[in-house]
Amino acid sequence: MRHESKILKDNPLGDKHIRDLIVYLPPNYDEDKQFPVVYCLTGFTGRGKMFLNDSAFTPNLAERLDKLIGDETIKPMIAVMPDCFTHYGGSQYINSSATGNYEDYLTQEIIPFVDENFGTINDKNSRAVMGKSSGGYGALVMATRHANLFGLACSTSGDAYFEFCYFPGIVEGFRAFKGDAKALIEKFWREDARKGKDDFAALNTIGMSACYSPNENSELGFDLPFDLATGEIREEVWARWLEHDPVRLVEKSVENLKSLKLLYIDAGIRDEFHLDLGARILCKRLKDFDIPHIHEEFDDGHFNISYRQNRSLELISDTFKE
Amino acid sequence: MRHESKILKDNPLGDKHIRDLIVYLPPNYDEDKQFPVVYCLTGFTGRGKMFLNDSAFTPNLAERLDKLIGDETIKPMIAVMPDCFTHYGGSQYINSSATGNYEDYLTQEIIPFVDENFGTINDKNSRAVMGKSSGGYGALVMATRHANLFGLACSTSGDAYFEFCYFPGIVEGFRAFKGDAKALIEKFWREDARKGKDDFAALNTIGMSACYSPNENSELGFDLPFDLATGEIREEVWARWLEHDPVRLVEKSVENLKSLKLLYIDAGIRDEFHLDLGARILCKRLKDFDIPHIHEEFDDGHFNISYRQNRSLELISDTFKE
Amino acid sequence: MRHESKILKDNPLGDKHIRDLIVYLPPNYDEDKQFPVVYCLTGFTGRGKMFLNDSAFTPNLAERLDKLIGDETIKPMIAVMPDCFTHYGGSQYINSSATGNYEDYLTQEIIPFVDENFGTINDKNSRAVMGKSSGGYGALVMATRHANLFGLACSTSGDAYFEFCYFPGIVEGFRAFKGDAKALIEKFWREDARKGKDDFAALNTIGMSACYSPNENSELGFDLPFDLATGEIREEVWARWLEHDPVRLVEKSVENLKSLKLLYIDAGIRDEFHLDLGARILCKRLKDFDIPHIHEEFDDGHFNISYRQNRSLELISDTFKE
Amino acid sequence: MRHESKILKDNPLGDKHIRDLIVYLPPNYDEDKQFPVVYCLTGFTGRGKMFLNDSAFTPNLAERLDKLIGDETIKPMIAVMPDCFTHYGGSQYINSSATGNYEDYLTQEIIPFVDENFGTINDKNSRAVMGKSSGGYGALVMATRHANLFGLACSTSGDAYFEFCYFPGIVEGFRAFKGDAKALIEKFWREDARKGKDDFAALNTIGMSACYSPNENSELGFDLPFDLATGEIREEVWARWLEHDPVRLVEKSVENLKSLKLLYIDAGIRDEFHLDLGARILCKRLKDFDIPHIHEEFDDGHFNISYRQNRSLELISDTFKE
Repeated sequence: MRHESKILKDNPLGDKHIRDLIVYLPPNYDEDKQFPVVYCLTGFTGRGKMFLNDSAFTPNLAERLDKLIGDETIKPMIAVMPDCFTHYGGSQYINSSATGNYEDYLTQEIIPFVDENFGTINDKNSRAVMGKSSGGYGALVMATRHANLFGLACSTSGDAYFEFCYFPGIVEGFRAFKGDAKALIEKFWREDARKGKDDFAALNTIGMSACYSPNENSELGFDLPFDLATGEIREEVWARWLEHDPVRLVEKSVENLKSLKLLYIDAGIRDEFHLDLGARILCKRLKDFDIPHIHEEFDDGHFNISYRQNRSLELISDTFKE
Repeated sequence: MRHESKILKDNPLGDKHIRDLIVYLPPNYDEDKQFPVVYCLTGFTGRGKMFLNDSAFTPNLAERLDKLIGDETIKPMIAVMPDCFTHYGGSQYINSSATGNYEDYLTQEIIPFVDENFGTINDKNSRAVMGKSSGGYGALVMATRHANLFGLACSTSGDAYFEFCYFPGIVEGFRAFKGDAKALIEKFWREDARKGKDDFAALNTIGMSACYSPNENSELGFDLPFDLATGEIREEVWARWLEHDPVRLVEKSVENLKSLKLLYIDAGIRDEFHLDLGARILCKRLKDFDIPHIHEEFDDGHFNISYRQNRSLELISDTFKE
Repeated sequence: MRHESKILKDNPLGDKHIRDLIVYLPPNYDEDKQFPVVYCLTGFTGRGKMFLNDSAFTPNLAERLDKLIGDETIKPMIAVMPDCFTHYGGSQYINSSATGNYEDYLTQEIIPFVDENFGTINDKNSRAVMGKSSGGYGALVMATRHANLFGLACSTSGDAYFEFCYFPGIVEGFRAFKGDAKALIEKFWREDARKGKDDFAALNTIGMSACYSPNENSELGFDLPFDLATGEIREEVWARWLEHDPVRLVEKSVENLKSLKLLYIDAGIRDEFHLDLGARILCKRLKDFDIPHIHEEFDDGHFNISYRQNRSLELISDTFKE
Repeated sequence: MRHESKILKDNPLGDKHIRDLIVYLPPNYDEDKQFPVVYCLTGFTGRGKMFLNDSAFTPNLAERLDKLIGDETIKPMIAVMPDCFTHYGGSQYINSSATGNYEDYLTQEIIPFVDENFGTINDKNSRAVMGKSSGGYGALVMATRHANLFGLACSTSGDAYFEFCYFPGIVEGFRAFKGDAKALIEKFWREDARKGKDDFAALNTIGMSACYSPNENSELGFDLPFDLATGEIREEVWARWLEHDPVRLVEKSVENLKSLKLLYIDAGIRDEFHLDLGARILCKRLKDFDIPHIHEEFDDGHFNISYRQNRSLELISDTFKE
């Protein structure tokens, strides 16, 4: 499905504002019936369409839903897979003067559009959001700021406790910059340029800078959290990042978080970005504020864990109101 | 497009015989016109559909063709992306009592089916085959045994010189077997089982054994090239593998290879499976037999090199007869 | 040579107080002559004796000195290689209630002992200190706090800017603790226990905690900079670490640092602990305070760089007063 | 101790013929008593002196022997640590026109020299040989060809089944040659040249070529087992290597091997060079020929396993005749 966005029109990166919106309809879909909806958010460098990518040994999300609904493991539901990708690799599903207003795009355009065009139950307790990695982060953003729209939120390996999930990558990726952030971005858009592990770490730092520390007055449009010559951390920029850390967002969002019917947080105990520790620290905060939630850990890392979607989908299905 | 295969019906692995056949049609496609055709073969653990997978920074094959044809960099052509995947990860595009007759499937069913259903030029000099890795191997198989069907063949990083591309992996993967090849295959079909580098090496050994050393009288349906207890190489099994090595196929296929209008072989000089060396040795054999060919090397490894498809497509386009 | 220490007697870890002191004497050594002295400090998990370890392709420090002095590349000098090793892997050459008073040991016992027993020039401008990694850190400690004893200091890849050299290792090593720091230390003292990369990162965190955040009232004798259950950083402990960071020591030691006849800082631009960045940031601070120093970078990593000793020794030799 | 060798005089690599011979004497050593002797052989790139290297958490061989003898875990014995290092990294303890006659050096010079100068029991059943890696290989060479001198032999992770322990390294190291084997050797002798994993694999291939396929008529003094341009294996050279494989030596040495009082073979089940598989295959051959031996496996890799010396020393001690 195509959707033409007003909010993304003239976005600062020149990314397209007419985008594919992937909508999965359950096998028994019928325009006259109403179904609950789950919004599925991809990780950094992802976009909705990738949920449909074919893979040798693993079902894609549509195949997975067909199976779970066919099995009656979960209730029939609509799944929406939006595209919040940007030239820098992603948007973290938040508004930024450096990338565009993707938080508004999702909450003010996509949700109404879906509710208008499909047989949905337009109610927060029949609307869930789930995602992995930056998609899990997006789910947490929705839970903390848009609990009026989403009554259920599941974050798998969602970005949290930025000291652990981002800081080491800032250090690792520093050398890839070679003093020129622009050249690094361009490298990613040249197909035949070989990219190493450090380049990906650097791209991640750029992507997060664009989301967390935009700066309309800087040449790049955002501030990097370190000095390009020595690597020294710019504490004031880093502090702006931390304001976006879910661990820090909890105290500002207690009422919203308490209003959720489902708040599910899981992560693998071998997560390469230490997001299991982020999840532990986040859940400690939730507990400190008496916010109901479910916390689980599983024996795996950060990658190739789409099978964990089953767990989120089952909890969502169980929680959707009858 | 769906195709129902008679050849794959009742195949030994119980893999489905009704399969998606991906056919790309150029922008100006018209049933009444006739277009040349390129068959695009995926690597091990791949199937045609994956050529259409979405990726952050890289166009998929359809987007790439749209761009190249739109640019007039290449002539309009049809591209066919068959599915020769199996329960063991692949078929190497050859017949085997352990997996099924995928060589026949491709040459006796898919080609006629395409020619019947699409506006193709049914002529070997308007029919090319290209692929990477095991897909490059498949292209070489077509070139050596089916030059009557394919007049153009391009192999990027195609499996060759098995001592280098497979032997180290046999050693590396040995421990993953833990004495039980079946259990290892099953592990790949369990989503939540963590797979390490050695597991993939072992799966590759299984896949190649099923293709190169099938044995209807063995419990597994094929012979492994080593003893499961000690790892000692079974020389007679390994010798059966070597019979399928393109480096060894050259001398049996001189006339076929000489008849080709295009034989293009390239590989990256950092190929993790040493396929650049395989390509060098293969091209040395071709030279020894005065077989015309183009040999190129590029500064990259085995993975994330789909941009090399451009080079093959351009050579194919230039060679297709007017 | 053996030295019996009063300062290390009854140290908290029960490490021995009678230790080998390695003293290199130049080929023309003669008790009646007087020679300048260089103190050579090892890195973490090292001790003086290891400078004499035999290696296939690389001279040990005695062989290196023989060669450089024989060549007349450097002046004849005495080299002292003290043992400041502890049960936790090292002492950082500072006083700590958790390990012992190694700073006092070196400055109050070893130096007088050497001057009494060997033909030294007992003058700060004829006494240098050099080292790599934690040994470089030790040299910086001497330069900032004991410039009355050492007039020359050379730090190769010395620990600096703890955010970069230690913080990622804290994160990486967290899992190795499994909630029990004592068990991890014991593991290192069991020969047949396999140690992985994370174990070494964890040992390093323990060693540095014992040096930088000792706590006589805690069970371990020191505070770890993170919570053992969640990994969350204990900011007050981390702040204690930072007080020991050379980058932060500069402003407290300006007069001492300005009094040095040689302050040399180098590091490899591929340093696995980012100590080249630490060196850059440190040298920026030195510059900000108008402290004379020499800063060099070389194209190598953190390990197998003993050839860099030549550069330090040559600068020391050139600077020793006539 | 210094020993001047006639056999090594004028060796083809210009390596020195006057060498340190390390001889460990037990605490109660007395010239008038007679002790059994164990010869300890280092791995590739090692020499006797390195057994005395100091290490943070692990005793060196002299400290280990002091402890085991002090404990009465083993009988008092002399330990001899010869130096069979060469410019190419080692000699495999065999004669070669490319490196020198190290097998003769050890058996015809070192043994008599030790027996003349120390209080030894000059009897094969009081003379053992042990070693790790190439040192284990050396022990197997002594067991197969010099059972008249050594009645006990222990190989830990000894080179065996060359297809697994050397072949993958030949492939891995190929690129490091860049067509010039000499330049690669020189690189190892330049301290400040960075050496990667592939360089070490290439050095190993050179070292083994010099030992197993020397050729007085070639420019290098030996034949490499592959073509420097394409990497293609030179089968006739590889066949010469295989003649030196312990797995192949068994059948030629049955009487010698049967005459041993102790033949002990162990390896770690995570050996990076697959020497546990080599050991399994070797022991299968020994069993086929009814040769008594002890075979053990342990849960570790190839490196940092000097604690396994205890097991060999204990078996040796138990076997030395009263």
